[in-house]
Amino acid sequence: MPGLSPKDEPQVQPDWISLLATAIDREDNQTPYYAQIAESFRSMIDSGKIIAGRKLPTNRELAALLSIDRSTAARAYAELTRLGYLESHVGRGSFARKPLNAGSTVAVSESEAVDWTRKFSRANQSIYDIFRSETETYEWKPDLISFAGGIPSFDSYPTEDFESILGAIMEENRARGLFEYSPAEGHPSLRRQVLFHLRRTEIPAQQEELLIVSGSQQGIDIVSSVFVDPGDRVVMEDPSYLWGGCSFKNRQAECLPTPMDDEGIRLDVLESHLKRYRPKLIYVIPNFQNPTGLTMSLERRVALLALAGQYQVPILEDDFVGDLRYEGERLPSLRALPGGDKIVIHQGTFSKALCPALRLGWLVAPQEVLGRLILAKRASNLSTNSLSQIFLAEFLAKGLLEDHLKSVRETYKRRRDTMLTELNRAFGTNKGITWSKPEGGMFIWMQLPEGHSTKELLLHARDRNVSFAPGHLCFLSGENTSYLRLCFIQNDEATIKAGIERLRQAIESYFDLVKARRSNSSRPVFAGGGHTFI
Amino acid sequence: MPGLSPKDEPQVQPDWISLLATAIDREDNQTPYYAQIAESFRSMIDSGKIIAGRKLPTNRELAALLSIDRSTAARAYAELTRLGYLESHVGRGSFARKPLNAGSTVAVSESEAVDWTRKFSRANQSIYDIFRSETETYEWKPDLISFAGGIPSFDSYPTEDFESILGAIMEENRARGLFEYSPAEGHPSLRRQVLFHLRRTEIPAQQEELLIVSGSQQGIDIVSSVFVDPGDRVVMEDPSYLWGGCSFKNRQAECLPTPMDDEGIRLDVLESHLKRYRPKLIYVIPNFQNPTGLTMSLERRVALLALAGQYQVPILEDDFVGDLRYEGERLPSLRALPGGDKIVIHQGTFSKALCPALRLGWLVAPQEVLGRLILAKRASNLSTNSLSQIFLAEFLAKGLLEDHLKSVRETYKRRRDTMLTELNRAFGTNKGITWSKPEGGMFIWMQLPEGHSTKELLLHARDRNVSFAPGHLCFLSGENTSYLRLCFIQNDEATIKAGIERLRQAIESYFDLVKARRSNSSRPVFAGGGHTFI
Repeated sequence: MPGLSPKDEPQVQPDWISLLATAIDREDNQTPYYAQIAESFRSMIDSGKIIAGRKLPTNRELAALLSIDRSTAARAYAELTRLGYLESHVGRGSFARKPLNAGSTVAVSESEAVDWTRKFSRANQSIYDIFRSETETYEWKPDLISFAGGIPSFDSYPTEDFESILGAIMEENRARGLFEYSPAEGHPSLRRQVLFHLRRTEIPAQQEELLIVSGSQQGIDIVSSVFVDPGDRVVMEDPSYLWGGCSFKNRQAECLPTPMDDEGIRLDVLESHLKRYRPKLIYVIPNFQNPTGLTMSLERRVALLALAGQYQVPILEDDFVGDLRYEGERLPSLRALPGGDKIVIHQGTFSKALCPALRLGWLVAPQEVLGRLILAKRASNLSTNSLSQIFLAEFLAKGLLEDHLKSVRETYKRRRDTMLTELNRAFGTNKGITWSKPEGGMFIWMQLPEGHSTKELLLHARDRNVSFAPGHLCFLSGENTSYLRLCFIQNDEATIKAGIERLRQAIESYFDLVKARRSNSSRPVFAGGGHTFI
Repeated sequence: MPGLSPKDEPQVQPDWISLLATAIDREDNQTPYYAQIAESFRSMIDSGKIIAGRKLPTNRELAALLSIDRSTAARAYAELTRLGYLESHVGRGSFARKPLNAGSTVAVSESEAVDWTRKFSRANQSIYDIFRSETETYEWKPDLISFAGGIPSFDSYPTEDFESILGAIMEENRARGLFEYSPAEGHPSLRRQVLFHLRRTEIPAQQEELLIVSGSQQGIDIVSSVFVDPGDRVVMEDPSYLWGGCSFKNRQAECLPTPMDDEGIRLDVLESHLKRYRPKLIYVIPNFQNPTGLTMSLERRVALLALAGQYQVPILEDDFVGDLRYEGERLPSLRALPGGDKIVIHQGTFSKALCPALRLGWLVAPQEVLGRLILAKRASNLSTNSLSQIFLAEFLAKGLLEDHLKSVRETYKRRRDTMLTELNRAFGTNKGITWSKPEGGMFIWMQLPEGHSTKELLLHARDRNVSFAPGHLCFLSGENTSYLRLCFIQNDEATIKAGIERLRQAIESYFDLVKARRSNSSRPVFAGGGHTFI
């Protein structure tokens, strides 16, 4: 500390009354008192009227001296501290201080500004790094046609049923219950209904194996927290659900990318991962995978379960759109296969089949795991909101989900068929462009020919007011920029037709540019695509 | 693998038609087909009819052979795999296998049961360890009087206002909006209202500094995930909020216990922590702290902020009951003190002042930190439920919170006064028993004389049908079993009187036992107290 040390300074109070006589200009309505007082002290310390190291009045004394309240006195001292003109010593009081760069208060406060970049955790940094190079260049215009989202179409929500449920709950004078705290494991009424729902879809689950979560993202996040230590490995399909990967990386997991073939995750690569890395967890999306739309075959499911058992690695089965199958037979959940109840943690959600805003999903896990998941759920957000749980329980109890599923399955099937038809019309003759034909769910996964980037395409799409999710963020490995994801459930058929036509034009103009660029051998310009998609 | 290796086995199909002729008894309605088939294979492998190592039909072939569907065939093979009688080799097929302990299927499946205890993360284990020794001995009886909780009394909820809000939202045909997805940072309507609310309580906050969270536990949890790497230090008041500590431990933080005096966290200990350990974060509850009920003095706040600035360590200020002050002047939030906006992350919630079931709180943080918090929020649960956000926004917009606060402050003040009076009546003459006199909030913190344990007292309390939160779980350091926490807002005055009388009797009988035990020099018996309290 520059100046005299407090010990050398005689502990005599200076004439504070006269020194502070002009500290406050009560006519000044612009500057808060605390700032005026701080400024007054600052100038007296700078000019030497108050010597650095001198003991200052206590908060209480200052308040009395200036007829201000203690809160204002304290703020004045806090401001002085911030400016570097005051130093507190526990038990001894506050002392004037002359900062090294006195007079240049800006510099002082800048040097005191926290360097946050050095504070963030490695876990958070690893998520940040994923999005760091994404620049938000895309301007959303009113008549944009978006295939980028990962949520159902708003007009598919059973709004009238929702309203009648809310009405019924209130009429029957049960509204009080909506505001009571729910147990961490979920509201009893919703738990009961989810168990029924699981039984209907042939997924075995006991009361003691079920946990309600605040959306399936929370499910992944707490599974991650229960199993993943920094440096642990998690097997993931590659590409996979972006925010699933984020939850694992947010625990400093190393995600092991495992490619897929037509039947799902490739078991040869998986087995070599299992042998070599002994991962903590295998995360798969067997039905209508995000982003590929691919469904894991029955044989692959059985063999995956056997491999997981052999290597004793638990599976997190994310069944985010299992109820949205438009053709063919429902395949058994991994959890439903023999032995699955021992090693599979099954996750489902109402966000896609019904409505994402409720933020409700569930986990089914072996009982000894469930206890740990409940602890993690508590540490995450104690319990799930009662209002939406009771609301959804009522909706399920009235059997309305089955009606709703019947209706949206028809609608979404038509939309999928329309999009496939339109894609075929637009790109069927272009051998270089391929896309998946999902049996359910919400996503079509499209690939441009080698050497094309959907990040670049997005700029052309923007010009034509159509958007999609560029695929590179879904990959764990390498620079895969030739894929894009199209959500087919969010728009009606006319809009899909118009949107795919816009996409066709965008691709045409982009391909022309690439050709021109190649003939000029100019360097590619990367840009854009900073959607947050789910 | 015992038996022949697949390579030695000629790849000729055995006569599967005859071997499998009796595999299914279609008259047997008790045993599923897959189980019959698996049993049939098992007995043929055991008896040597099928040699270990022999290639089995594919799923498809088996389904055709037995006129069953592929799903059943796959289940049969999965069951065989589970029993150890089948081995799959990627790309080559499935092969019969004779388990080492053939015939003893129980042993096989047990050996395949996952050893979960070896799978759990160190983070999860550290939370588990906190509760491990807590045994749930307490049976909740209907006429129990509980002072254990950490939530407001249910009859204090403004139920009629709640109902009219729900009604209004529906009548005005705005129910549709309730089910739309909210942005990760919160629904615009609630964000606007929270900013107004913050302005009223003189906490500076800009639009860009605000994040809505799914309850303040999630706030702590995502702050923890943004800052804490394993081994990082977090300063906490000791004792402090149990689940706050859990969120830090769930990131493998080392929590640095910092004792308090009458003015709040002790700065001499804090400064030595700051010097020695360079912690990542300082977590404090300045108003009516959980569990002590203590309020940090203005001088202490200013000095704490200065110290944090000097050592460049961010503060997480948890203001969980700041609105529930029953006397004296509101002290400025740490965030509101000069310089506080640079280094303080401020957290508030509607769970205590209003209703915990909504699970809504907020974080205010410097803008560059907020971006990171939003990423962590997304990884945690993508976004917050819209239904409760819109509901609460409406409640706030109508100015109903101020009315509600006025009403509950009066009620809770009376309840606090009643509890203090009753405590004085019951224990005023017992010099060994002391308790805090909080100016607000919900908790009174009580200490028994040296050598007494509130875990033991809980057994006596149980006999008298009264409960409290034993204090040992709130301490980070040592075995502090002489404290207990009483929530004074949850019961009406008559119940408080009756409950404190029961507590008096429980303490009397427990003290008698301790005396008797001392004269007998018998060893103390520890037990019980496994409440989950918040």
